[in-house]
Amino acid sequence: MRWRKLRRSVFDILERDLPGDHIADAVHYFLIITVLLSVSGAVLATVPSLQLRDKWWFHWGEFSALLIFTVEYAVRLWVAPEHPLRRRLKPLVARARYAVTVPALIDLVAILPWFVSLITEVDVHALLVLRLLRFLKLARYSSGFNALYLAVRRERYALLSCLIILWTGVLMAATAMYLIERDVQPEKFGSIPEAMWWAITTLTTVGYGDVVPVTNLGRVVGAVTMVSGLMMLALPIAIIASSFSEVISKHNFVVTFSMISRLPPFSDLEAPVLGDILPLLNSRSFDRGHHVVRRGENAAHLFVVLQGQLEMEDEAGTRRLGPGDVFGLLPGLPKTKPLQVRALVKTKILAIEENELHMLALRHPTLMGRLLAAAAVDREPDPEA
Amino acid sequence: MRWRKLRRSVFDILERDLPGDHIADAVHYFLIITVLLSVSGAVLATVPSLQLRDKWWFHWGEFSALLIFTVEYAVRLWVAPEHPLRRRLKPLVARARYAVTVPALIDLVAILPWFVSLITEVDVHALLVLRLLRFLKLARYSSGFNALYLAVRRERYALLSCLIILWTGVLMAATAMYLIERDVQPEKFGSIPEAMWWAITTLTTVGYGDVVPVTNLGRVVGAVTMVSGLMMLALPIAIIASSFSEVISKHNFVVTFSMISRLPPFSDLEAPVLGDILPLLNSRSFDRGHHVVRRGENAAHLFVVLQGQLEMEDEAGTRRLGPGDVFGLLPGLPKTKPLQVRALVKTKILAIEENELHMLALRHPTLMGRLLAAAAVDREPDPEA
Amino acid sequence: MRWRKLRRSVFDILERDLPGDHIADAVHYFLIITVLLSVSGAVLATVPSLQLRDKWWFHWGEFSALLIFTVEYAVRLWVAPEHPLRRRLKPLVARARYAVTVPALIDLVAILPWFVSLITEVDVHALLVLRLLRFLKLARYSSGFNALYLAVRRERYALLSCLIILWTGVLMAATAMYLIERDVQPEKFGSIPEAMWWAITTLTTVGYGDVVPVTNLGRVVGAVTMVSGLMMLALPIAIIASSFSEVISKHNFVVTFSMISRLPPFSDLEAPVLGDILPLLNSRSFDRGHHVVRRGENAAHLFVVLQGQLEMEDEAGTRRLGPGDVFGLLPGLPKTKPLQVRALVKTKILAIEENELHMLALRHPTLMGRLLAAAAVDREPDPEA
Amino acid sequence: MRWRKLRRSVFDILERDLPGDHIADAVHYFLIITVLLSVSGAVLATVPSLQLRDKWWFHWGEFSALLIFTVEYAVRLWVAPEHPLRRRLKPLVARARYAVTVPALIDLVAILPWFVSLITEVDVHALLVLRLLRFLKLARYSSGFNALYLAVRRERYALLSCLIILWTGVLMAATAMYLIERDVQPEKFGSIPEAMWWAITTLTTVGYGDVVPVTNLGRVVGAVTMVSGLMMLALPIAIIASSFSEVISKHNFVVTFSMISRLPPFSDLEAPVLGDILPLLNSRSFDRGHHVVRRGENAAHLFVVLQGQLEMEDEAGTRRLGPGDVFGLLPGLPKTKPLQVRALVKTKILAIEENELHMLALRHPTLMGRLLAAAAVDREPDPEA
Repeated sequence: MRWRKLRRSVFDILERDLPGDHIADAVHYFLIITVLLSVSGAVLATVPSLQLRDKWWFHWGEFSALLIFTVEYAVRLWVAPEHPLRRRLKPLVARARYAVTVPALIDLVAILPWFVSLITEVDVHALLVLRLLRFLKLARYSSGFNALYLAVRRERYALLSCLIILWTGVLMAATAMYLIERDVQPEKFGSIPEAMWWAITTLTTVGYGDVVPVTNLGRVVGAVTMVSGLMMLALPIAIIASSFSEVISKHNFVVTFSMISRLPPFSDLEAPVLGDILPLLNSRSFDRGHHVVRRGENAAHLFVVLQGQLEMEDEAGTRRLGPGDVFGLLPGLPKTKPLQVRALVKTKILAIEENELHMLALRHPTLMGRLLAAAAVDREPDPEA
Repeated sequence: MRWRKLRRSVFDILERDLPGDHIADAVHYFLIITVLLSVSGAVLATVPSLQLRDKWWFHWGEFSALLIFTVEYAVRLWVAPEHPLRRRLKPLVARARYAVTVPALIDLVAILPWFVSLITEVDVHALLVLRLLRFLKLARYSSGFNALYLAVRRERYALLSCLIILWTGVLMAATAMYLIERDVQPEKFGSIPEAMWWAITTLTTVGYGDVVPVTNLGRVVGAVTMVSGLMMLALPIAIIASSFSEVISKHNFVVTFSMISRLPPFSDLEAPVLGDILPLLNSRSFDRGHHVVRRGENAAHLFVVLQGQLEMEDEAGTRRLGPGDVFGLLPGLPKTKPLQVRALVKTKILAIEENELHMLALRHPTLMGRLLAAAAVDREPDPEA
Repeated sequence: MRWRKLRRSVFDILERDLPGDHIADAVHYFLIITVLLSVSGAVLATVPSLQLRDKWWFHWGEFSALLIFTVEYAVRLWVAPEHPLRRRLKPLVARARYAVTVPALIDLVAILPWFVSLITEVDVHALLVLRLLRFLKLARYSSGFNALYLAVRRERYALLSCLIILWTGVLMAATAMYLIERDVQPEKFGSIPEAMWWAITTLTTVGYGDVVPVTNLGRVVGAVTMVSGLMMLALPIAIIASSFSEVISKHNFVVTFSMISRLPPFSDLEAPVLGDILPLLNSRSFDRGHHVVRRGENAAHLFVVLQGQLEMEDEAGTRRLGPGDVFGLLPGLPKTKPLQVRALVKTKILAIEENELHMLALRHPTLMGRLLAAAAVDREPDPEA
Repeated sequence: MRWRKLRRSVFDILERDLPGDHIADAVHYFLIITVLLSVSGAVLATVPSLQLRDKWWFHWGEFSALLIFTVEYAVRLWVAPEHPLRRRLKPLVARARYAVTVPALIDLVAILPWFVSLITEVDVHALLVLRLLRFLKLARYSSGFNALYLAVRRERYALLSCLIILWTGVLMAATAMYLIERDVQPEKFGSIPEAMWWAITTLTTVGYGDVVPVTNLGRVVGAVTMVSGLMMLALPIAIIASSFSEVISKHNFVVTFSMISRLPPFSDLEAPVLGDILPLLNSRSFDRGHHVVRRGENAAHLFVVLQGQLEMEDEAGTRRLGPGDVFGLLPGLPKTKPLQVRALVKTKILAIEENELHMLALRHPTLMGRLLAAAAVDREPDPEA
């Protein structure tokens, strides 16, 4: 029992979702710094003039980092059953499931090479790339990666179209240039794949200048390619740009499973329901004094308070809302009358859009019941209305 | 008669617009893969070190691809009279009309070189480019190409302005540089066309570095050219970007003639009317549970259901809508009262904007009658109102 | 008197603002083609291998172009008093005023060099640039140039800020690189101005590669410069892009003085008032069947019909509007009741925004009287109300 | 006492916020020109061929600039106690506080090197950079720098995410290229830091071409890197672009402490309150005849007139507003009825958004009292209502 409690505490520290937990903060920054130092070491070790490999302290540093990452991996494996998505599974199954997630595999790959090199005699350099993958461990802590991933995912079909268009442009420019410059510069445009190197360099406006057309006709084709390149630039900028800035404005902070599984309306939902809800939650921070809903506005979202405190005004009077409270648009109820909701301290809120809410209501009717109950509980104990 | 039926089925398979037709999907992917392999082969055949031309299997592959494309061309020609736009023509006229469309010409050009080389003794390399045009056959399957084409077409005047501005910039920068660097680097800036190569390289920010000013004055002109180049970058990005992302958001999928000619209100319209309507149709997909029209909103479009099922609520009660049903803004009727329309399964809908609808009403009054009838039919059999 | 009439006709042809005037169209395209040929000739004449200067037909072509441009210049000077802005001036004064406008100066400069070279013995090459300025004559016909000019002008302060920021970046990067690489590459980074060439090449992402840092510290500074360069790219793109696309959407066609001086409400206004109004006029084209004002919308602009025909519906019934008619927001009247205005044929309309209208009302009260009168005239002869 | 008055006048001249003060304008432009000349001199002095250091007038110019900047520094130090933020401090404390602000330190650094070189024998070239920092003195006068600073600050987390993503891209591309090209081009890809130079050159699309992959696999990796580079370009453009243009549209001119401390409602606020308010003030210019609030609109801001004159219409009649007057949204009062506010001359106005206003009301209740009083004073002396 004491072990379970310790495991729970360690999990909370590693996930770092209890606000104001200083031990969690310290562990968090310690791991980030270790990754940064370890990656910097791996990069600098390739510079012959520094002769880092001959320094005793470099080996000690490398060994310490390896030790830290091994311990981290082992601990994460140990606390894996505490994750809300795996809480109902047997501990061993939970750990096996965790071990095949992407973050766990990155963690493993970051330490594996060293152990392999202890046992067998493999080429050390092939392991080098794997050690640099440790940098990807940082993705765990960055909301930027998360936003880029979401932005790219949302627009994956449009981006694929861009790639096809780019590829068509490369193919056509390369073929034309191959036919034109083949005889003049056989060492540079001797085959279409070689000409494609020139084409992609030009279409992306990188323009190394190692391969350049020299005939008049080749330069005309080159000019057309460059101008088309401006268009190639425009397409992904248009797509990624709007998508990325929209995602960043919707997701002020990273929402984790453990965060929402702590909130009453979501607290003992089954894993697949949680997995359905998580991507629909927009996260927003409000500073003290700012309005979540202004007077006279109709709320277009369902809101769940994650952290902080709010003051809500409606016909029934004024009420305080804290973590786990639900307000705003409610699927079963008529749209509530004009009210005003204001942050009293810095507050973090989760929001679900109307359309997504209807989708959830169709798929998980029980969830809607809970949300209504949570909102009703808020409403009832207000006798002075 | 049996031939007609077979021809019709083959046409449906090639157009692939009956959802869930697995034979059509297989044919579709088979043709895409054949194009990709054939183009890759043509590209790699130009690499001398691979010596692909000496391999027996390479020749077999090339011959198979040619055979497949020849059969495809012949079959497409055979089924051409099934196309809704050509259904009233005599079969031979219909085939002749199809044979001069752009996709048919690309298909022809992709096979022609080989037949030509059988008869006459032409240079094989001139045929190479034509074989690579097979890649353009893929445009038929890509909604990205379609969106780029629509985006460029919508903004063709603005893009033309950009080209004129770019051309003016190139001309002025080249002339200035020719006058300045002509005597110092006669082999690079010896004529204005040569200087224009430098100018376009710089204005598009490609910057190969094969031609670079070396005098002080030349570098000042170069600096001004580069800064103007940033502006040249901005113009097409501004124009294409907003247009492309708008087109992509309006056209979720490619709408074909055969798709709409299957829907009751459009089913036996004459070809020119269909040709008028097609570019006005926006295509939108809605996931299960999402709203097409929200409660209290006025519909700003006329909607025609293409695939899937919807639930519509109005004063008369709740009704289900399926493929071919019409709802939303109707030109002759007053704007209908607040209603709500929701997708029950994944649904594809065609939408016509208010402005375009008025244009259609002026040009094709009979079409409006049909749309009204289709909407009325929906409305009548609802006795419980 | 007959001369006056001829002068007027010639002016109308050159300004080309009577729609459907085929002579004006022919003259227009003839002049554009002459400019294009003449500029192409001047460009190609600098290519030594073509030896164009030794061809008799090249000299004949050059002479013809010169003749055409001289006649054009003389005719434009002759008809100058017909311009609405100069109609009240004495003919000689009107011509003198026209002669110092930018388009007239470009026309003059395009022919002057040849006459100068007839009289004196100047270096022929210095004249070359001036001949290429003929290309700028085309700006007269392009709405793209107009839009770019307006977009740059609107955002001139923001663009100036960009230039200052770019300049600061260039200065700081160049100084740092000069201090770092001065001793290693004295021939490339020997002075700050030389280092500035590298800095501007890098910040604009052109990257010729003729000057490149080679030391470690230099490469670190170079990397920081490149990343800052991405930001430098973003600023003008952000500013020009939104401004340019907004201007292009507001100005569908070029509005000239002669166009508006033909319309009743503006027909005999003094030149300074016309000069005040012209930049406030947005120009919009509407296709047949499209709405200028939709039912239920409040018009946010004052509209003046320039070309075509519209159908207006209000409480008083339905009325047709043609060139010179005024409708929409009127400064003295209360906002008119919901109406609907629809184009019956392809129609061109001028629009003034509410804010600009109030500004005009303050500055030119008489103009408002005329506009009200024009709207009233429209309103009165409608007896069936 | 007379000294105090003089000090006050000198402060007003240096801050230049009394409109129409010609002495202030002259001093302002004189200082800008001196900075520009001094920096140009420092830049050109590094060009060996000009031999500026041997010219007597160059030394005189340098000495004059130094003198001017020394006097400017001393005077700014002397008048420092006049700054509204430091008015309640003892003069010496006020000067010490001013001396450690960023602008004061830049001013000091711009003159220090020369004095140091008088006393000690330091390397003259190390001082060069510091002299060029004088250019930063201009930031004081530029609203563009201000806007860029605010735009970058607002989006600092998103930009940091971009840098992390860029850094990950650089690291991964460099490691891959190091493994691939290490043996073929040991002098260019001999270590990961060297390969990172290539990676950053490619990802930013600068593409010098001094380091280029030559193997087939290297070129494939290079192509992937270039295409990713297009995405890297898109991210900061998306973020900076929208943020910068929004900031520029909100901040038409730079708002200084002295400007607002002259206005009645803010006139004797304590420094920390002023410091809280300043970043919330949006600055907007309105030309004669333009509307600040249109008829029928609800004001969404609190407005304070800074300069110029306005005409306000409400139920109580028409009234003129001048500098220091307050109108629009008021936190304690119900939203005022539809009114109309129009600029009679070119007018500068400060605006606070609704959300920010509520935040201020929570933090500084006394300030709200003053604003209400200022609005009431405006309202009362209107007896003809």
